[in-house]
Amino acid sequence: MECKHPLDYIFHPKSIGVAGVSNDASNTGQMLLQPLITSGFKGEIYAINPKAKEALGLKCYPSINNIPGPVDYVIVSIPARLTPKLLEDCVVKGVKVAALFTAGFSESGDEGGQQLEDHIVQIARQGGMRIIGPNCLGIYCPATGLSLHPDLPQQSGPVGFICQSGGNTHYMTQAGATRGIRFSKVISYGNACDLNESDFIEYFTDDPETEIITAYIEGTKDGARFFKALHKAVKAKPVIIFKGGYTEAGIAGVASHTGALAGSEAVWEGLFKQTGVIRAYSLDELIDIALPFLYMPPPQGRNVGIIGLGGGASVQAADECTTAGLSVPPLPQGVRDILKKFTTSAGNIFRNPVDTQSFFIGPQEYLKTVETVANWEGIDLLILHIAPDALVIPGISQELIGIWIEVIVNAAKQCSKPVAVVLHSFGGAKSWELLSSWQEQCYQAGLATFPTVKRAANAISKFIQYHEVREAFYG
Amino acid sequence: MECKHPLDYIFHPKSIGVAGVSNDASNTGQMLLQPLITSGFKGEIYAINPKAKEALGLKCYPSINNIPGPVDYVIVSIPARLTPKLLEDCVVKGVKVAALFTAGFSESGDEGGQQLEDHIVQIARQGGMRIIGPNCLGIYCPATGLSLHPDLPQQSGPVGFICQSGGNTHYMTQAGATRGIRFSKVISYGNACDLNESDFIEYFTDDPETEIITAYIEGTKDGARFFKALHKAVKAKPVIIFKGGYTEAGIAGVASHTGALAGSEAVWEGLFKQTGVIRAYSLDELIDIALPFLYMPPPQGRNVGIIGLGGGASVQAADECTTAGLSVPPLPQGVRDILKKFTTSAGNIFRNPVDTQSFFIGPQEYLKTVETVANWEGIDLLILHIAPDALVIPGISQELIGIWIEVIVNAAKQCSKPVAVVLHSFGGAKSWELLSSWQEQCYQAGLATFPTVKRAANAISKFIQYHEVREAFYG
Repeated sequence: MECKHPLDYIFHPKSIGVAGVSNDASNTGQMLLQPLITSGFKGEIYAINPKAKEALGLKCYPSINNIPGPVDYVIVSIPARLTPKLLEDCVVKGVKVAALFTAGFSESGDEGGQQLEDHIVQIARQGGMRIIGPNCLGIYCPATGLSLHPDLPQQSGPVGFICQSGGNTHYMTQAGATRGIRFSKVISYGNACDLNESDFIEYFTDDPETEIITAYIEGTKDGARFFKALHKAVKAKPVIIFKGGYTEAGIAGVASHTGALAGSEAVWEGLFKQTGVIRAYSLDELIDIALPFLYMPPPQGRNVGIIGLGGGASVQAADECTTAGLSVPPLPQGVRDILKKFTTSAGNIFRNPVDTQSFFIGPQEYLKTVETVANWEGIDLLILHIAPDALVIPGISQELIGIWIEVIVNAAKQCSKPVAVVLHSFGGAKSWELLSSWQEQCYQAGLATFPTVKRAANAISKFIQYHEVREAFYG
Repeated sequence: MECKHPLDYIFHPKSIGVAGVSNDASNTGQMLLQPLITSGFKGEIYAINPKAKEALGLKCYPSINNIPGPVDYVIVSIPARLTPKLLEDCVVKGVKVAALFTAGFSESGDEGGQQLEDHIVQIARQGGMRIIGPNCLGIYCPATGLSLHPDLPQQSGPVGFICQSGGNTHYMTQAGATRGIRFSKVISYGNACDLNESDFIEYFTDDPETEIITAYIEGTKDGARFFKALHKAVKAKPVIIFKGGYTEAGIAGVASHTGALAGSEAVWEGLFKQTGVIRAYSLDELIDIALPFLYMPPPQGRNVGIIGLGGGASVQAADECTTAGLSVPPLPQGVRDILKKFTTSAGNIFRNPVDTQSFFIGPQEYLKTVETVANWEGIDLLILHIAPDALVIPGISQELIGIWIEVIVNAAKQCSKPVAVVLHSFGGAKSWELLSSWQEQCYQAGLATFPTVKRAANAISKFIQYHEVREAFYG
């Protein structure tokens, strides 16, 4: 899929230089170079360092001018005061984009930092080069082998993510990967001295590889343009944004972090409401909300059928779904009678939530339970919840526990309504190991998973609301 | 420590019978018997089953009358319709307490179930025997070797817990254990046909081994007595309650689960407010709130110093602490100047939250950072947050990562103010393994840990509020 947006070239460099990398134990440049090697970037990679001979097996060039071939993209990890000279060299070399990991610019709050930032922007503008950052990680684009961490998937996906924080970029890409999110392009853009949030939102709006736009944003310098960009983006695809800095202390933190003008909470809330952006309040919630868009068809209404193990867990699930804005309608007697045919009465709840002992009876009984609830016309979607720890009791074989996730996946796939799977845990290390593998089996099968019913209900409620208000926004 | 409450004997049986246990793969009685064997109950354990010869290595007696010695405590896992006969036998045998795992009584909603429950209560009352349950797990009392799961700690602790749900009892005891909670006594009491929530709250109030009372409660049949019991309990020690059923769907779920009269949300909210009970809305929150009571001295105010890694994480931490009702005061210039002496400016935030690169510089710099912030008089408590995943980057040695939790523990222990530790994760299985061990190292050292800043801030805010309002309640 070709993207006709004028910024598309920044995701497709043919050659990369990494400035400031060495083999020293304390060298943070390795953090930026290693992922490119690991992810198998297909073009040339050059290490640049006047003081080192070699870095991670690559020869170091003393300056970018010494590199024999062309260099499209330069990743910069050198002291701030040395960046103007490097960028001047980049302009001469014909570099198209520089991503500056280097910090110590406008975010420092010093006048000198701001001046230095203005200076490098001037160099880039005059030389026809673009800057990502400074104070950022740059680009993750699995399709072209640009990566930010050796552990990130090399597989592409439909989620675009822009992020003003490097640490949050690591969190979102790694935590998102374990939940089943795959990315088209990710840009960690820090202080946004040149390319900024509006540029990337506009790019994602046009990018056919990006179906869902997600963002962590701390502030904007051009509210009017950003509003326009979001307005257009939301017409094209779902946009989910976590705005960092929504309290006085958070807003002050933003100023120290990326030097951004965080703006008042009221302005941002208004912006999101007027444009139809879905708002998240943490990275975890950003991931949560993205998942139904990836893995669930839109439910036709808010009536949820909840099936799992445990009476107390069922009561809590009913409370949490209701609080999140979903409805938990009682199953009619006819449906309860069907359920009672293949599970004993004692210790079960058939009302909805359904607390089913079928986990201890057998897979067929569980499948029939799910099917029976899903087939009732009063239900629009299902939440299937299970804590594997709850199955680990004397008398239940390890083999039976092992197959349960397959049974749940089968039940969900055969189901006539949208399904979300909640995998809780009692928190032990052993149980997390099991849960991680269950989680992966679910998203490989195309199922959204959540760690609690509360988080599932919240995400699904916002997902449903998006579809409810779409018409209002787009006629 | 001797407890003079008249119910104390139920936690100190000298001999136990388990009725309805067998070696069959599907026998749930094993779930109740196995933990007694594993936890090393010191008295006699007898298996009772007219149809089986042996269960988990124990000879089965056909009826309780055939057991040669006295039996103090009987755990019942037989069909509901057979329970009256068994309880009559128990009375004859001189059994003091029976805990009925068996379900199918008042919670079934059938008239027959209610009648059966009334019948067994009559048998017990006439025979001078007490009943826990039915539809429950019974007692976990590490000091006497009564246990509910083979994995539960055999070590006692200061937290008492009563729980109307068996599944929630498993969750709270196991998840609590991994977070560092150790229990004095836990009672899973189900339908509460005889011994009920008020009995156990009164017991915990008098019990010197119980310093913090926690509960999961779905309803009460005697609101006036429960109010009185709570009123007295809160005067003696902190009481934290998670009330299941606070929405229409949840309240309906309660009726199907334990047959309890859930009561209206307004009545419960009033009850908690008037008595000074701390309210939780999930089991996780119940655990969260208990932890500061166990591991933190009360902060003198609400001003929190936040130290961790990541600018975005710092902004989020500031927002979440503020939202939870804590204050995040900016560090004065003098304190920032001290911090700048031993960490480079670039990429750090010194304002509060402190985003410190000292994790990549060295332990001494981190220790000095914590000490410097803690020593400022404007700070009442500290939150130290770290995601071990954030340390796993090329160029940082595994050894350095391995020692970090020791460094954090040392910093916290030397600190002049109360400290909470937040251990986040990007969610991979490897990272959970590391986190589990870090978590354990923390609570072994006497530190409260939380999985997110949001949850830490919420728990600490309620902890501080408890101390703020204590005076109002107790003059």
